[in-house]
Amino acid sequence: MLFDKPREECGVFGVFSPKKTDVSKLTYYGLFALQHRGQESCGIFVNDGVEFRSYKELGVVNDVFTGERLTELGSGEMAVGHVRYATTGNADKANAQPIEVRHMRGRFALAHNGNLVNSAELRRGIEKDGAIFHSTSDTEVIAYIITRERIKTQSIEEAAGLAMDKLCGAYSLVIMTGDKLLAVRDKNGFRPLCIGITDDGAYIAASESCALDAVGARFLRDVEPGEIIVFDKDGMKSIKTHCNKAPRSVCVFEYIYFARPDSVIDGCSVHKARLRAGAFLSVEHPVQADVVIGVPDSGIDGAIGYAARSGIPYGMGFIKNKYIARTFIAPGQKSREDKVRIKLNPVVNTVREKRVVLIDDSIVRGTTSGRIVKLLRDAGAKEVHMRITSPPFINPCYYGTDVDSSENLIACRHTVSETAKIIGADSLGYLSVESVKRIAGEEGGYCCACFNGQYPTRLPKDAGKDKFENNISD
Amino acid sequence: MLFDKPREECGVFGVFSPKKTDVSKLTYYGLFALQHRGQESCGIFVNDGVEFRSYKELGVVNDVFTGERLTELGSGEMAVGHVRYATTGNADKANAQPIEVRHMRGRFALAHNGNLVNSAELRRGIEKDGAIFHSTSDTEVIAYIITRERIKTQSIEEAAGLAMDKLCGAYSLVIMTGDKLLAVRDKNGFRPLCIGITDDGAYIAASESCALDAVGARFLRDVEPGEIIVFDKDGMKSIKTHCNKAPRSVCVFEYIYFARPDSVIDGCSVHKARLRAGAFLSVEHPVQADVVIGVPDSGIDGAIGYAARSGIPYGMGFIKNKYIARTFIAPGQKSREDKVRIKLNPVVNTVREKRVVLIDDSIVRGTTSGRIVKLLRDAGAKEVHMRITSPPFINPCYYGTDVDSSENLIACRHTVSETAKIIGADSLGYLSVESVKRIAGEEGGYCCACFNGQYPTRLPKDAGKDKFENNISD
Amino acid sequence: MLFDKPREECGVFGVFSPKKTDVSKLTYYGLFALQHRGQESCGIFVNDGVEFRSYKELGVVNDVFTGERLTELGSGEMAVGHVRYATTGNADKANAQPIEVRHMRGRFALAHNGNLVNSAELRRGIEKDGAIFHSTSDTEVIAYIITRERIKTQSIEEAAGLAMDKLCGAYSLVIMTGDKLLAVRDKNGFRPLCIGITDDGAYIAASESCALDAVGARFLRDVEPGEIIVFDKDGMKSIKTHCNKAPRSVCVFEYIYFARPDSVIDGCSVHKARLRAGAFLSVEHPVQADVVIGVPDSGIDGAIGYAARSGIPYGMGFIKNKYIARTFIAPGQKSREDKVRIKLNPVVNTVREKRVVLIDDSIVRGTTSGRIVKLLRDAGAKEVHMRITSPPFINPCYYGTDVDSSENLIACRHTVSETAKIIGADSLGYLSVESVKRIAGEEGGYCCACFNGQYPTRLPKDAGKDKFENNISD
Amino acid sequence: MLFDKPREECGVFGVFSPKKTDVSKLTYYGLFALQHRGQESCGIFVNDGVEFRSYKELGVVNDVFTGERLTELGSGEMAVGHVRYATTGNADKANAQPIEVRHMRGRFALAHNGNLVNSAELRRGIEKDGAIFHSTSDTEVIAYIITRERIKTQSIEEAAGLAMDKLCGAYSLVIMTGDKLLAVRDKNGFRPLCIGITDDGAYIAASESCALDAVGARFLRDVEPGEIIVFDKDGMKSIKTHCNKAPRSVCVFEYIYFARPDSVIDGCSVHKARLRAGAFLSVEHPVQADVVIGVPDSGIDGAIGYAARSGIPYGMGFIKNKYIARTFIAPGQKSREDKVRIKLNPVVNTVREKRVVLIDDSIVRGTTSGRIVKLLRDAGAKEVHMRITSPPFINPCYYGTDVDSSENLIACRHTVSETAKIIGADSLGYLSVESVKRIAGEEGGYCCACFNGQYPTRLPKDAGKDKFENNISD
Repeated sequence: MLFDKPREECGVFGVFSPKKTDVSKLTYYGLFALQHRGQESCGIFVNDGVEFRSYKELGVVNDVFTGERLTELGSGEMAVGHVRYATTGNADKANAQPIEVRHMRGRFALAHNGNLVNSAELRRGIEKDGAIFHSTSDTEVIAYIITRERIKTQSIEEAAGLAMDKLCGAYSLVIMTGDKLLAVRDKNGFRPLCIGITDDGAYIAASESCALDAVGARFLRDVEPGEIIVFDKDGMKSIKTHCNKAPRSVCVFEYIYFARPDSVIDGCSVHKARLRAGAFLSVEHPVQADVVIGVPDSGIDGAIGYAARSGIPYGMGFIKNKYIARTFIAPGQKSREDKVRIKLNPVVNTVREKRVVLIDDSIVRGTTSGRIVKLLRDAGAKEVHMRITSPPFINPCYYGTDVDSSENLIACRHTVSETAKIIGADSLGYLSVESVKRIAGEEGGYCCACFNGQYPTRLPKDAGKDKFENNISD
Repeated sequence: MLFDKPREECGVFGVFSPKKTDVSKLTYYGLFALQHRGQESCGIFVNDGVEFRSYKELGVVNDVFTGERLTELGSGEMAVGHVRYATTGNADKANAQPIEVRHMRGRFALAHNGNLVNSAELRRGIEKDGAIFHSTSDTEVIAYIITRERIKTQSIEEAAGLAMDKLCGAYSLVIMTGDKLLAVRDKNGFRPLCIGITDDGAYIAASESCALDAVGARFLRDVEPGEIIVFDKDGMKSIKTHCNKAPRSVCVFEYIYFARPDSVIDGCSVHKARLRAGAFLSVEHPVQADVVIGVPDSGIDGAIGYAARSGIPYGMGFIKNKYIARTFIAPGQKSREDKVRIKLNPVVNTVREKRVVLIDDSIVRGTTSGRIVKLLRDAGAKEVHMRITSPPFINPCYYGTDVDSSENLIACRHTVSETAKIIGADSLGYLSVESVKRIAGEEGGYCCACFNGQYPTRLPKDAGKDKFENNISD
Repeated sequence: MLFDKPREECGVFGVFSPKKTDVSKLTYYGLFALQHRGQESCGIFVNDGVEFRSYKELGVVNDVFTGERLTELGSGEMAVGHVRYATTGNADKANAQPIEVRHMRGRFALAHNGNLVNSAELRRGIEKDGAIFHSTSDTEVIAYIITRERIKTQSIEEAAGLAMDKLCGAYSLVIMTGDKLLAVRDKNGFRPLCIGITDDGAYIAASESCALDAVGARFLRDVEPGEIIVFDKDGMKSIKTHCNKAPRSVCVFEYIYFARPDSVIDGCSVHKARLRAGAFLSVEHPVQADVVIGVPDSGIDGAIGYAARSGIPYGMGFIKNKYIARTFIAPGQKSREDKVRIKLNPVVNTVREKRVVLIDDSIVRGTTSGRIVKLLRDAGAKEVHMRITSPPFINPCYYGTDVDSSENLIACRHTVSETAKIIGADSLGYLSVESVKRIAGEEGGYCCACFNGQYPTRLPKDAGKDKFENNISD
Repeated sequence: MLFDKPREECGVFGVFSPKKTDVSKLTYYGLFALQHRGQESCGIFVNDGVEFRSYKELGVVNDVFTGERLTELGSGEMAVGHVRYATTGNADKANAQPIEVRHMRGRFALAHNGNLVNSAELRRGIEKDGAIFHSTSDTEVIAYIITRERIKTQSIEEAAGLAMDKLCGAYSLVIMTGDKLLAVRDKNGFRPLCIGITDDGAYIAASESCALDAVGARFLRDVEPGEIIVFDKDGMKSIKTHCNKAPRSVCVFEYIYFARPDSVIDGCSVHKARLRAGAFLSVEHPVQADVVIGVPDSGIDGAIGYAARSGIPYGMGFIKNKYIARTFIAPGQKSREDKVRIKLNPVVNTVREKRVVLIDDSIVRGTTSGRIVKLLRDAGAKEVHMRITSPPFINPCYYGTDVDSSENLIACRHTVSETAKIIGADSLGYLSVESVKRIAGEEGGYCCACFNGQYPTRLPKDAGKDKFENNISD
């Protein structure tokens, strides 16, 4: 990781193409656009009407899916894809998605973004019946819950609906069966999920609208919290039985950091939300300065917003080495300061002898922020005023990100002024919780639990990422 | 594949090392010695007393397990490993073994060699309870059967015993739990399984004794048909409840082709069995000739046996290019004749102007035999008399090899004299069924079903490799 | 390539570390910072006082130099590194640099950035003496010229000086011998070259100052046109015999596109030069508009400069998929328009219903520009006014870039208004030649030959990249 | 390396196909058949009448030349290939062959097997003229010598002939120019070289006849010592100016170990020579025993010959793990004894309670022989009588093998009876020098210098592999 940022769990993508087109390549392009949501493993399942073909592997989309592999996956009527970080379960291949399930009535492939709060209880119940698990992820629990309903019901959508009564937490799902594709979003709508249609008439479901753009699909609409959308030979069908059964609580950090700026989530442009965050910040924490700069890439939008509202000129403060890949391993014994410098170099001309406002989206541990401030001072900045386009992290997230351990969160252990001192800034200002709720619109409906502790669901009995990892007795 | 030979499904290996030694490397060496039993995928699970660490992948042992990977697997108290061909299920990674099972009472890893004849029925029964399957292999069925007994009983060995009442067919298993290692051989003893002990006091279970040699272990004994052997902190324990419940029926083709000549199976040296097969053959099908040669590598022993009994000199008839690896792909449009020649070149000096007896272990489709005969004629052989150290294949095998489809078996469609003509030999002789039963000893107890159709168990209702592959309806 | 841009030939890096430190890793970091100057191959030579160790390969720095390879290269007193595009010679490994030369008096390794205009004549002269060439690159010619002087003189610096009398064209060199490191810049100073020093006292020579930053070195100064700098156990020595023998003619396109914005070349910040280019452009080609956006990454600086001077707000018009690597191969039959979209997605919120000023650094063939304009229109832009921060390319470059063939240059075949129509822009404006000469400072001294045809040296007799490629007669 | 055997330097292959066929694949098959002559690097150059295309890399043929690479190399009129061990020069890529030379009159590619004894002097002479060397191999010296004649003469064959006056030592060459292919064998004929023709009329030159077989070519004849054969559009031409200018002295160890048994060299089958060596050995060193076994693979032929002559039965004493590749790295801390066992397992049935004659082709350091004897004793052999089908190594080889350092040769430091004791054998017998001269025919003409010190040429002034490696002063 370049900087210590929270990490999103996953991105999902599905396509239903009655004309049997090159669905594996469409999915490849879609996953490539969603790569920022998970870089640990990826997978694609294709259904060509006769069989499922699949490939999943640790690695990024562009490495895992070579032209040869995509040719093997080939064309078909449907496909489902996934990119993943590990938030529950280890980073091993057993947890890669989509997962495939073979049951009495057939089979399905499942891709999941989010985290349940009741997976441990659900799992224990299933295990009592002699079930076996191959992985430690929530996704296998969801698969079981759906399967157990499926063998008692007539259709996958019915089974999914019954499963929603049991599942609690965050889940945006794409499910592919022999003849249907489903898009399912949990009742709170924690994670984004939207649908679109290509000129060829192929339906697309994707975590973010940028993936629709990448495959040339037209945005239709967001999947509503609690909604099940079914694509099959008869077209598209919506099941809203579970809608409006829980308060809407979209993760506000999707707007601040996770999602791509060119995506539009639940009606609000991510880029616009970030500009607004920067603008609000300039009102809440004004400062006399000569230039506003952002930490690439996620602080740039906020910086533009701050600059525009404050009237202080925007400048390009850093050059990021664009050949830095996720897999960049800085060899050798150089200090971590040096490693930051290899990735990020200040533009001396922008900051020398200047009072600088430095915008970033968040601070987790604070170490990287400290290094970045130092780079600016070494480059001749007279003052560095750090401004953060979100409130301090002080609570764990149970809905599919890795903000979980208070001991790693600088804001849990230090006041704002202490933090400013630790990172070496002349001043430090966070966006207020009140403002962050308004960045994507005035009507509310956002989960800010990591900032304010107000969780929209009950809490897990046994929170913690490795909850299924360690019992190996006979 | 170099030649069209039947293929063995798998090889298994396990180690129980109370002193916590480098079990991953021991397993590596063991699997390397068993490589001939399966070259499609391989895997190792290590139990270090705290956690299971594992790696499995498509490929051969030496490619998959680099030094780095073995270091990651590290040392521990136990390990279990597997090499695999696909006889049930596709050659995809989902079917690689060992498989890991997490259940209510803990977890285990399972490595399996053989094929069940009742897996389809067992699977359907389990699926009715809402179980999900991730693979198409028999092994996952065995895992479920054991797990469902395990949650009702007090120990893994009890569960394994109860499972044996339900499983029908060929299975040599190694099972690793949190604190025990089990070696289990089916009641008929179709597939070999033996145990040994190292100087360090580590117990080994392996498909063949050559794997004991490879890790410097002393051979203790074969696991008996129907026996469960348990290794734990209290040492070694034998459970013979299921012994002598079925006729002993060891696969005779293990002696003819599958096993390594340096292995000893159920008291008989494989090499010696092959020499005997050659000797029997010389009595059943004598011929006036100048030299006896074998097709490398599996026909060499038989040729030495034939030569010794007949008095005709043994000669080296072919040089096999020793850089031919499993992955050798002959590029380009060369004829298949040329491809055989690249792998195998006759030694002109041995065969020119000679009457040649050519020994091979078996004929499947006959195409390669024809090419080999032609190579000898091109090199100047005056006569070529082909002798086969086994009877003709005329029946499918349901116990873990891929002799299954009569349409590919030349002996199902042609008489011996027709076959001789097709492959271009001056004469052709197969070993008789009566003799093949005697190659490994006079007392009998061998499965020769592929030759004589006498199956020692009931037959599967739905034979066929892809039985779980193709139903993808919703 | 993402967009059709001119390409720089190479980047060079050298380190002289009397304390024998980890020079291979320093060089790795330096090359990584210079990656933008050449992504086709890279190489490092290390001199540890006893032997030269080296590795060079096709590929980018981060792929070619794994931790293991760097460990093999190890520490030493000196190292020299190179990143390369092919402008002369094919993209094969034989042309990778640095090249090593063994001659009568010892050996040296040579890294070169630039192109000679008289290499063909020089080569023919050498060949007449029976010399053999292994590659088609200018660099081997330079090596021969230096070697032939070296065996007649007492030192490498003397030989390099004599060689400069013969070499005509662009060459920034780093030369490593058994005990010296040399930095040499041609008399015109076409390509940048600068030196620095680390806290450890290691001297660095590098194509751009960003590579000094990356290794934590302090910038000392630029190497002057015509200067030879020698680093050895006695420290640093400058030889200026060839200085001021030709007009200074630094490539202006280094400022516009090639160099990294955080580099400072010959006293001028590249970032600042780009801001100035944008500002000049807004004066030369003003337009009524609502937002100024830049094409990532190279048009961003110009856009900020244009916005600041014009008073039109700056906006983020595109999101570039940051996982696009050089090796990204878009699979399948998608139209090229779609491929651009996968790499670059417009931010609808920024451009919808807006009059947009779109800044880019140059137009080569025009096809990509057309696609980008179309993306903006599809995203709802009302007007698109394209502004280019350089004049039109109308002449080939003979000094180390690949601007060479007039048939590929849209400006050679179309007027500005025709070009505007072809790319679909409402208006199009290029920076004037007069202004481009002023972007890096008012005093002049820049080569603008590709824009105005005024070449600072004589021309090659036989221009063309493959001049040594094709004569294969006996 | 499996066992400590002397190593051959190289294998060469060339094809001249006026019909422009798939010469890259022919060369691939040829090199694959010659793989045993060098496994360190390999390369192919193709001439399609317009350009040379090439690829060379460290690694074995089957790894380096993927289908994709061969497709890139494509078809043409000629090709030349090489497999290599490093005997002169390091194992780095710079020394891989064929090497390409561009000179005043054109270009050529050169593949070389053998070692010169006067390369150091020749090199120094060339360097005085300002020549540069990129590698440390003899081959670059040969290339220079030929080039310097070429620019003074009218044809490559004339240049090659003049070069032969200067070159002293072992060299079998294949040279490809723009329109000709040459096969050149040194005046002594140290290394084999033969020619053949395919059904398509393509001429082949190869180190051994097994490569002709591999490409389906008919053997025409051996190239004579001192002969130059030219293939061009007018067919085949022989130049014998240098024939019979030196005593024929074919390396006898080609018959004993280096060459493949299915090759025929200078009229004698390698397999037959080995059978004769075994037979001679049984006469010189008879012993009362129960079985004769050979060390795989190179001792097998000798064992068959010994058995046939002595009347003692031949048996299969060891099984070699056929998945052992050159790259097999035994991980971990196991003793070397165990490592031998992993590669080679005794067949207990063959040797238990037996008096064993163990045949091997040579002993270098003796360590592996000791381990093999121990394996037999552990397997129950009562007596082990070792017999070697060659005399003891006591002198360095200067003609292209790595028998060079007397300190590593057990026979230089110990008597035969001491050696027997060291390796643990009950007796030990070497073939006599008198007999070894007769294994390939009675007429003589073999180099046995490593056994008897009678060198057929003058000796190098500075013998030693790394003679050009270490001078790095300025």
